[in-house]
Amino acid sequence: MVEKIREVYERYGFEPVETPAMEFTDALGKFLPDQDRPNEGVFSFQDDDEQWISLRYDLTAPLARYVAENFEALPKPYRSYRFGYVFRNEKPGPGRFRQFMQFDADTVGSASPAADAEMCMMAADTMEALGIPRGSYVVKVNNRKVLDGVMESIGLGGEENAGRRLTVLRAIDKLDRLGEQGVRELLGEGRKDESGDFTKGAGISASDAETVFAFMHGGADANDKSFFQRLENVFNEKGSTSGSEGLKELSQIFDITMASGYGDGRVLIDTSVVRGLEYYTGPVYEVELLLDTKDEKGRPVRFGSVGGGGRYDGLVSRFRGEPVPATGFSIGVSRLQAALTMLGKLDTRTDFGPVVVTVFDRDRVADYQKMVAELRNANIRAELYLGNPKNMGNQLKYADRRNSPCVIIQGSDEKARGEIQIKDLIEGAKAAAVIASNQEWRETRPAQFSCAESEIVARVREVLARHDVKWG
Amino acid sequence: MVEKIREVYERYGFEPVETPAMEFTDALGKFLPDQDRPNEGVFSFQDDDEQWISLRYDLTAPLARYVAENFEALPKPYRSYRFGYVFRNEKPGPGRFRQFMQFDADTVGSASPAADAEMCMMAADTMEALGIPRGSYVVKVNNRKVLDGVMESIGLGGEENAGRRLTVLRAIDKLDRLGEQGVRELLGEGRKDESGDFTKGAGISASDAETVFAFMHGGADANDKSFFQRLENVFNEKGSTSGSEGLKELSQIFDITMASGYGDGRVLIDTSVVRGLEYYTGPVYEVELLLDTKDEKGRPVRFGSVGGGGRYDGLVSRFRGEPVPATGFSIGVSRLQAALTMLGKLDTRTDFGPVVVTVFDRDRVADYQKMVAELRNANIRAELYLGNPKNMGNQLKYADRRNSPCVIIQGSDEKARGEIQIKDLIEGAKAAAVIASNQEWRETRPAQFSCAESEIVARVREVLARHDVKWG
Repeated sequence: MVEKIREVYERYGFEPVETPAMEFTDALGKFLPDQDRPNEGVFSFQDDDEQWISLRYDLTAPLARYVAENFEALPKPYRSYRFGYVFRNEKPGPGRFRQFMQFDADTVGSASPAADAEMCMMAADTMEALGIPRGSYVVKVNNRKVLDGVMESIGLGGEENAGRRLTVLRAIDKLDRLGEQGVRELLGEGRKDESGDFTKGAGISASDAETVFAFMHGGADANDKSFFQRLENVFNEKGSTSGSEGLKELSQIFDITMASGYGDGRVLIDTSVVRGLEYYTGPVYEVELLLDTKDEKGRPVRFGSVGGGGRYDGLVSRFRGEPVPATGFSIGVSRLQAALTMLGKLDTRTDFGPVVVTVFDRDRVADYQKMVAELRNANIRAELYLGNPKNMGNQLKYADRRNSPCVIIQGSDEKARGEIQIKDLIEGAKAAAVIASNQEWRETRPAQFSCAESEIVARVREVLARHDVKWG
Repeated sequence: MVEKIREVYERYGFEPVETPAMEFTDALGKFLPDQDRPNEGVFSFQDDDEQWISLRYDLTAPLARYVAENFEALPKPYRSYRFGYVFRNEKPGPGRFRQFMQFDADTVGSASPAADAEMCMMAADTMEALGIPRGSYVVKVNNRKVLDGVMESIGLGGEENAGRRLTVLRAIDKLDRLGEQGVRELLGEGRKDESGDFTKGAGISASDAETVFAFMHGGADANDKSFFQRLENVFNEKGSTSGSEGLKELSQIFDITMASGYGDGRVLIDTSVVRGLEYYTGPVYEVELLLDTKDEKGRPVRFGSVGGGGRYDGLVSRFRGEPVPATGFSIGVSRLQAALTMLGKLDTRTDFGPVVVTVFDRDRVADYQKMVAELRNANIRAELYLGNPKNMGNQLKYADRRNSPCVIIQGSDEKARGEIQIKDLIEGAKAAAVIASNQEWRETRPAQFSCAESEIVARVREVLARHDVKWG
């Protein structure tokens, strides 16, 4: 899976670079992801010198530090990718892990919306490389500045409204889950959920809520230039320059993805997308799986987001005096893996195990090991049976369990004749399945045969070829 | 590098299984590696429920826990491999990292010395797969029971002598560094080093020190059965049964590696090998690089151990009532990588970068991006120049820096004619090198040419084929 993602990222011109799993908290701490919950969720501890160290919370912050440190030596724009585990100090639950793998790509040093558009197209290509068919996923794009513009338009601009702004954004983010009525309540006075718990709302007026919804409804038909004109009119009327700027960037991304053929439902402008991380400054994007699948108990599961990202122009520059634009995309590998497994898209076919050389005579382990070495030298996956050799039946059961294509047996009689027995387990299983109806077939393709010990490699190769056994 | 190691491990019949990077300290703590320094070196911290969590110190302890937990479901013997980062709470220094990668293979459920012999042969095969020539490495094998036998023989058996035993083992371990005289001092009263610091010795008699040295000298000519007989005589005389048992196991490993052809200097019995980890119970092995190399400042560097392992029969059984024999081998990937880089064995050849589509006319980014998409769809690594496009020279410099095989240029004239320019950077560099002497050659193989925009994929493929550019 990681190999397939890597292939797409490399086709897009990204090169691999690794960053460490832990950093001094001083360095990482500046980037804590959710500014409304500083330090929460990060695993931190002190080393022997009492310096605080943190495990990485994501791959973006360490990359930002890396680029800032090596800025002069890197080509600009700098395109790189990496994958690795990240750590969250949260209560583990279904789909929520304390350790999970991310696969990130980042372009640092480009302010162009083309860099963002490229991330969205790469996200789409990655989904298809992983076997998710077109139409079963969508890459949704929004722009943080558009959301800011909406906030300005309803009088929630400025530092002093940060808290209420967050309440509105969180309400919007719940559209999928709560529906329009629920979101309206959260935008207004508040909402009582089924358990009777009351969540205080943002307290905005009904007409302001309408303005918010004008944007939320845009999603589906966004691939229509008139949509941009309609929203532009709202921003012009309300006098929001940041909103207009965001729309212009969205429109550029729209043009590029359309020109490249990704406007067929793969990449979609959707102004209701809110990405949680506070450090995004412009375009944000999210990959959603659209399939409803069933879990082991037959209950429907909607996978939702399996990756996302956005522009974080402020992150690298916190380490350097100058502004450094950057945009990045991150796949939740563990989460996507769970989704693919459920969709049956992950190759879970049992591979063939090694050829097993059995131990008939325990005093001749060195002889048997020599056969194993000979097979391995011929690049054939092979092993000596290393359990207690007293029972040949157990050795054959072990080989079955490993899904071995064949086993090698040499008793003292065969040894005296310079021969070995090769038992073809695949043929044997087939034979066992048809034995009643097709006795004759079994006799013409024997599942067990003798040959000279010196022919071991050649005859095992024949068995492997007959059943098309390939490894690796 | 990881791929090459994986290939060898799979040829030996090991299958991949991953274990988490952190565990509850309760689970991991039982296995702290050096019993004489419990808890030292392990990074630990509390989660929100105040439960202690530790980062893995090695890959062996988590595997032991995993096998113990899944014992019934696994085939036995159970052969598995894994790689990943481990964490050490130590002061970082040259060759000493707080985070480094290990690549482990383990066979759980086999008490047979054949399992240990196999690890040693696999270690040798791995070195050669990584390009280290035969003769430039050696896999040294010893047995913890032989060392125990030596201790018993000099009257240092039993719990009450644990401290002195450790002093003797540490002295032996310094043979390479301090030479025979230094070790003799450490076995006796003690040793003053060049700085004048005094290290207290083990205080054993001169004749006991001779017994110790009888074993230490065995190394070089160990591949001679008379060596085993000589040591066996010492143990018989001193009445050490554990020593005799250890010798018998060593002798079996010797027979197997000889029969498989690894007795040609690849795998060597060496009774002076002491592996630090306290949990080893039988055979121990160590891979040493024999090459003296120079560092950047021209000083000789001896790499020494790049991997090792041994039998740890007590580890899994700490989690289960029954005894579970196990043996494992671990490669220090980060360390070996440093060694290979110094030996020039690591493929550091610069790969070709992507084809770069330049931006001539900044209003037509969508057009250029479309060309990029077309190339990528044809599986050609390609990217749009995402920096500030005002200067074509900067774009070409960027492409050079990325080691791009060619760039695509389309100005308004070409656009009007439906054409593009392809600039072959590899040919261009060659041409630049011979321009004075071979003007004519340059003219016949032009480094820059025009073609129809619709031919972009075909013509770029020609350039790639001409220079044998392959990716991935």
